[in-house]
Amino acid sequence: MELHTADQYLVAEAGVDLLAVLEALKGTGLYPPFPPVELPGGVGGLVARGGFAQNFFFPAEVLGLTFRTPKGRVVRAGGVVVKNVQGYDLVRPFVGSFGLLGEALEVVFRLRPGQVSLFLRRPFSGEFPALSPSPRFLFALKEGEAWWLYAYHFGPEKEVARFHETFGGEEVGPLDLRPLFPRGMGVGEGPLKDLRFAWRDGGKTPEAPALFQRLAASL
Amino acid sequence: MELHTADQYLVAEAGVDLLAVLEALKGTGLYPPFPPVELPGGVGGLVARGGFAQNFFFPAEVLGLTFRTPKGRVVRAGGVVVKNVQGYDLVRPFVGSFGLLGEALEVVFRLRPGQVSLFLRRPFSGEFPALSPSPRFLFALKEGEAWWLYAYHFGPEKEVARFHETFGGEEVGPLDLRPLFPRGMGVGEGPLKDLRFAWRDGGKTPEAPALFQRLAASL
Repeated sequence: MELHTADQYLVAEAGVDLLAVLEALKGTGLYPPFPPVELPGGVGGLVARGGFAQNFFFPAEVLGLTFRTPKGRVVRAGGVVVKNVQGYDLVRPFVGSFGLLGEALEVVFRLRPGQVSLFLRRPFSGEFPALSPSPRFLFALKEGEAWWLYAYHFGPEKEVARFHETFGGEEVGPLDLRPLFPRGMGVGEGPLKDLRFAWRDGGKTPEAPALFQRLAASL
Repeated sequence: MELHTADQYLVAEAGVDLLAVLEALKGTGLYPPFPPVELPGGVGGLVARGGFAQNFFFPAEVLGLTFRTPKGRVVRAGGVVVKNVQGYDLVRPFVGSFGLLGEALEVVFRLRPGQVSLFLRRPFSGEFPALSPSPRFLFALKEGEAWWLYAYHFGPEKEVARFHETFGGEEVGPLDLRPLFPRGMGVGEGPLKDLRFAWRDGGKTPEAPALFQRLAASL
């Protein structure tokens, strides 16, 4: 892992655990684009699935990528420039392509500053609520027979305090959800939901549009 | 043009002028992802070039697209959902692809709210300054022998007032820059610069990576 705090980005091999990234960032005041939750496949798996639990445009937080295409080509896409993409973007189609464009080897994440962070849970009603301030990450997890709504936020102290007040609930620590997905994390009704999908063990990948499949086959 | 103020998006045919979009949005308190500047090719041209003058991740503001591929296929990509991309993203590679993936037919822009907006200019030193608050759009234009720095911002009243104070300069109206580009707007030293490129009449498109060309050829 390579941490560039001044330029606010991080380079990680695809196999690096999500919680290992958070551990490496402790004390820097910088945060990656995922919550303190371990999921299958480390950062490579996360990017292939298009992120987890985010309440923002995740692909913009992936500044660069090295990946191996299905035909075995190794491609470097994007870079470490934060603000602007110069065009001919191969990073964004890779993100959320569920392996169709190949396998990530290395990922460059944008890091964002925050004074504090807070991870909370409260009982889940079955619907994701509109919250203000809107936490950066929101997901629902079934534990035993009960569903819980988890929210993770970082930012300025005052904003995080307002999040605490609005959301209520209880504070929680990092979660390891890998045991829920021994056969891999796919889409389908299961014990985990975020704003995009329901996730289940051995679940499917979403169906790709024909043109995207053609694109994948060309790489 | 179709304006959806409640859901904060706009659908425009590719040929629609940028200033016509701004005109249609007058009084709604909503703003598109470009400044009050007319450029060649309307919204389709803008998207093909990857936007203009923005100080943020432009591709995320293009929610959906209909385009005709070089082989003549008509493709609908993305949609009108603001927060999350479900994966298999064909919108983002199109944005900034300078026509390589085909021709836009219709564009769906995300709109963002602002209480007020302000368009200012002041003499340009040759370097883009770091400003706080950072205006959403920043570009430099040569007029006669002098270079001017233009900045356009919208947002909460107080923030725009602080922008006014920090930036100084004089207020300006919408600009029509199409006469600068009778042979088309391309990349190269010329009378216009933004944070990504210098732009000139009849300028070139940036060179596409080999893999991107392969991808384009597949569509």
